[in-house]
Amino acid sequence: MNIGLDMMGGDLAPLEAVKGLQLYFNETSSPAHLFLSGDETQINVLLKEHHISSQKITVIHAPQVIGMHEHPTKALKEKPQSSIAVGFYLLANNKIDAFISAGNTGAMMVGALFSIKAIDGVNRPTISTIIPKENGKTGLLLDVGINADCKPENLNQFAILGSLYAQYILGIENPKVGLMNVGEEEGKGNLLTQAAYPLLKENKQINFVGNTEGRDIFFDKADVMVCDGFTGNIILKLAESLYEITQNKKIHHQYFDQFNFEIYGGTPVLGVNKPVIIGHGISKGRAFKNMIDVAQKMIATDLLGKMKASFTIN
Amino acid sequence: MNIGLDMMGGDLAPLEAVKGLQLYFNETSSPAHLFLSGDETQINVLLKEHHISSQKITVIHAPQVIGMHEHPTKALKEKPQSSIAVGFYLLANNKIDAFISAGNTGAMMVGALFSIKAIDGVNRPTISTIIPKENGKTGLLLDVGINADCKPENLNQFAILGSLYAQYILGIENPKVGLMNVGEEEGKGNLLTQAAYPLLKENKQINFVGNTEGRDIFFDKADVMVCDGFTGNIILKLAESLYEITQNKKIHHQYFDQFNFEIYGGTPVLGVNKPVIIGHGISKGRAFKNMIDVAQKMIATDLLGKMKASFTIN
Repeated sequence: MNIGLDMMGGDLAPLEAVKGLQLYFNETSSPAHLFLSGDETQINVLLKEHHISSQKITVIHAPQVIGMHEHPTKALKEKPQSSIAVGFYLLANNKIDAFISAGNTGAMMVGALFSIKAIDGVNRPTISTIIPKENGKTGLLLDVGINADCKPENLNQFAILGSLYAQYILGIENPKVGLMNVGEEEGKGNLLTQAAYPLLKENKQINFVGNTEGRDIFFDKADVMVCDGFTGNIILKLAESLYEITQNKKIHHQYFDQFNFEIYGGTPVLGVNKPVIIGHGISKGRAFKNMIDVAQKMIATDLLGKMKASFTIN
Repeated sequence: MNIGLDMMGGDLAPLEAVKGLQLYFNETSSPAHLFLSGDETQINVLLKEHHISSQKITVIHAPQVIGMHEHPTKALKEKPQSSIAVGFYLLANNKIDAFISAGNTGAMMVGALFSIKAIDGVNRPTISTIIPKENGKTGLLLDVGINADCKPENLNQFAILGSLYAQYILGIENPKVGLMNVGEEEGKGNLLTQAAYPLLKENKQINFVGNTEGRDIFFDKADVMVCDGFTGNIILKLAESLYEITQNKKIHHQYFDQFNFEIYGGTPVLGVNKPVIIGHGISKGRAFKNMIDVAQKMIATDLLGKMKASFTIN
C-alpha cells in the first residue's frame, strides 16, 4: 500500500507534515509506504532531525510549491514540478494509491476532478465534514462547499457516497441518512429538498430516515446528513466557530473540544476514482497523522471499489 | 396605544399570557391599553387570581380556538370567532395598533399576509431571529423560514426591513448588513447570493459590509444578516439546539444562556402594514411580556411608517 503525502502543503509545512509522519510511524503497527513529494533537501533534513528513518519512506523531489492563494488551474499548469502536481502524477499513474495534501484546496480539487476524475455515474464529487454528536457518536455532513447549487440527484448521490464512507471509514452499521431541511414532514422545504425527498425515499442503497432540521444536526437523528454545498458550508463554518467561542470564553468541555476540526485531519474528496484527502491549511502533526490513517483505511477497505460498484448497479 | 394579545395562543395559554400581563403592568410605567382576545370567563378568572385589575385591559370574548396543528387557511375561515381571527379583525379595523399571538404560526402568517397585507413595494414579508453575538451585542438574522426559496431582490428587501428593525427596535445605529454566504469575496456563493451581492452593494438605504460566512454569525462582522429562509431556518434551529445541548451537559455560561430563544419572546412579521408578532408555542410569562414591549416599541417609534417610507422612495 502506497500513500502520497504533499510535504509542502499547509501553513505549517513541511515541519508539521514531518511530525505527522513521526506520529504515524510510532503508532502504526503495519504502516503503508509513504511517498513524500516536496523539496528533497528540506524534507531529508527534517526527517533526520526527527529521527525518522524508515525503509517505508521514499522522497520524491518536487522543487516547486503552489502557494495557498494561487489560482488553482493556472498554478497546476505552470508548476508541473510542484508537490501537488507531482502527487497527482503519481496517483494517476498508479505509483501511489492515495494522495494527501493540506495545501491549496482549489488546486487539490482541480487535480482530483481533472487528473483522477469522477467515478462513472457520479455527477458531482463532494466533500464532507465530521459532525460531533452530543451523545458521543460521529455524524457526517455533505456537501460542505464545492457544490453551492445542487440538483436533487446530486443530493441523492451524496447520500450514497456518504453512507459508504460512514459505513467503511467511520464504522457506522447501516447509517441513517437524513435530508437537511426546514420541517419534519415530507413535502416541506425549498424546491431542491422537496424534489430530493422522493429520490432519497426510493433509493434502496441507503437507509433514509427523512428530514433533519437544524436542531437535529448535533443530535442522533441521522448519521449522514445531505445538503447543498451552500447550506453545508455555512453549517460547517458555524460549527467551527463554536470551538473558537468556547475557547475564548474558557468554556472547556469535552464536547466542544471536538469542534476543533483540526483533529479530524481533513476531508476526503468523495466521488472521484481514487482516495484524495484535503487537509486544513493549519494542519498540525496530529492532523497529518489522522489523514494518513484515513487514506490507509480507504485503501484497506477498498472504499473506492464499493463506491464504483454502487454507481455501476444504479 | 392599543395592543391586542391572543390569550389562547401557545401551549401554555392562557395562564402564561396572564403572567406576562402581570409582569408587563408591574414593570411598565406607562403601559399601553391591552385588548385580550379569548375565552372571557377563563381570562377573567385568571386575571382576578393574579390580581390584575387595570383600566387598561379590555377583554374581547372569542369563544373559538385555533389549535396548534390546524390547517391555517381552513381554520381561519371556519373559526371567525377564534382568538386569532378576532385579533386580526380588530387590527384590520384599527381598534388595535398591533397584534401578538403565540398560537398557530401558520394562521398568524396567513392573517398577517391576507388581512393586514404586505407594505406596498414589499414582495415578500419576512420573519427574523435575534442572534446573540459573542461580544455581548445583538444581531438580527432574516429570513428564518417563511421564504424557503428567494429571489435576489427579496434578500435586498430583507436588508432594508432588517436594518430599520435593528435601528429602531434593537437600538443599533447605522447597522452593518451582511449577506450570508460561503466566501468572503464578491463573486463567491450560489446563484442567489452571487446575484444578490451587487443589489445590496448598490442599495443606498443600507450599510452593506459584504459577505458573512458561517463563522461570522456569532461574531461582530454584521448586525443584520440576510439569507433565504431555508438557510436562515437551519441556522436558527441549530442555534436553538445549542441551548439544549449546553443545558444537557450542564455547561452554564451567560453566553449560551442567551440561546434560550424563549426569552426574546417572539418574532415580528416584517414587511406587513401593521405590527404583528408571533411567539414560540412554548412562550412563558417573560416571553409574553417581552412581546408586548416589542409591539409597544414598534408603535412608539412608528417603525411601520419608516418601513413604508423606505419602500415609497425605492
